[in-house]
Amino acid sequence: MHDDIARNPYPTVDAIIELPGDRIVLIERVHEPLGFALPGGFVEYGERAEDACIREAREETGLDITLTRLFGVYSDPARDHRRHTLTCVFLATARGEPSGGSDAAAAHPWPLADLEHVVLAFDHGLIVRDYLHWRRTGELPPPRPGGA
Amino acid sequence: MHDDIARNPYPTVDAIIELPGDRIVLIERVHEPLGFALPGGFVEYGERAEDACIREAREETGLDITLTRLFGVYSDPARDHRRHTLTCVFLATARGEPSGGSDAAAAHPWPLADLEHVVLAFDHGLIVRDYLHWRRTGELPPPRPGGA
Repeated sequence: MHDDIARNPYPTVDAIIELPGDRIVLIERVHEPLGFALPGGFVEYGERAEDACIREAREETGLDITLTRLFGVYSDPARDHRRHTLTCVFLATARGEPSGGSDAAAAHPWPLADLEHVVLAFDHGLIVRDYLHWRRTGELPPPRPGGA
Repeated sequence: MHDDIARNPYPTVDAIIELPGDRIVLIERVHEPLGFALPGGFVEYGERAEDACIREAREETGLDITLTRLFGVYSDPARDHRRHTLTCVFLATARGEPSGGSDAAAAHPWPLADLEHVVLAFDHGLIVRDYLHWRRTGELPPPRPGGA
């Protein structure tokens, strides 16, 4: 049995949306923590992770995305100071250009070459570094046990 | 803000533990739903998915596993009739042979060639088919949006 629902992390999704011209989409957050981030949010009960990712991308960027692959799962309890979340990161493509949605002040196409100049919220800096590493080498992020 | 904690699926982990001789480990469940399954269980609050996977494998098979890669995320709301779970499936290796643990009546090494003869609980049949497909083709399970 499993009665203590408070014992589990919150599942979330994030999208790395690849646009033509070696760009991805970043959003400027209007809620704490402020700053730039990948588009994403909570998976709702009864919703698949894939559908949550498509929904959140639409809400935050105005883009209809196509998921191309699962990229990684990030679940360090320290990745969000508000609560423990476990995020499933998908790669995606989209046509058109992003626009600000309901949850984000603005969504920006961001050249990969300029990613090193932006500070990202949560552990999205790690995710983006893993993504750039994968583009260079083909190596996906490894499992990262934290305990011993 | 995110106040309604009941709105989220429960994050879980499952391990495909590869043993020498083209075998993986299946457990015989002692709790409903009965039958055979991959070893796995709930991710605890404050615990990384990777650590949960290593812990559950130890509890259910007696094996100390090394995670080799993330294989896929499965979150169809119908995958477990008791509640909506979202599972992160890792590939792993281990030395030695499995033994029954606390949560499982018995853990069995299972030849890949005999996997088609076993009915697995949850959506573990799909996961195992995806795994065998990946071994043949190198293709990982694709994102599977369910809604439109």
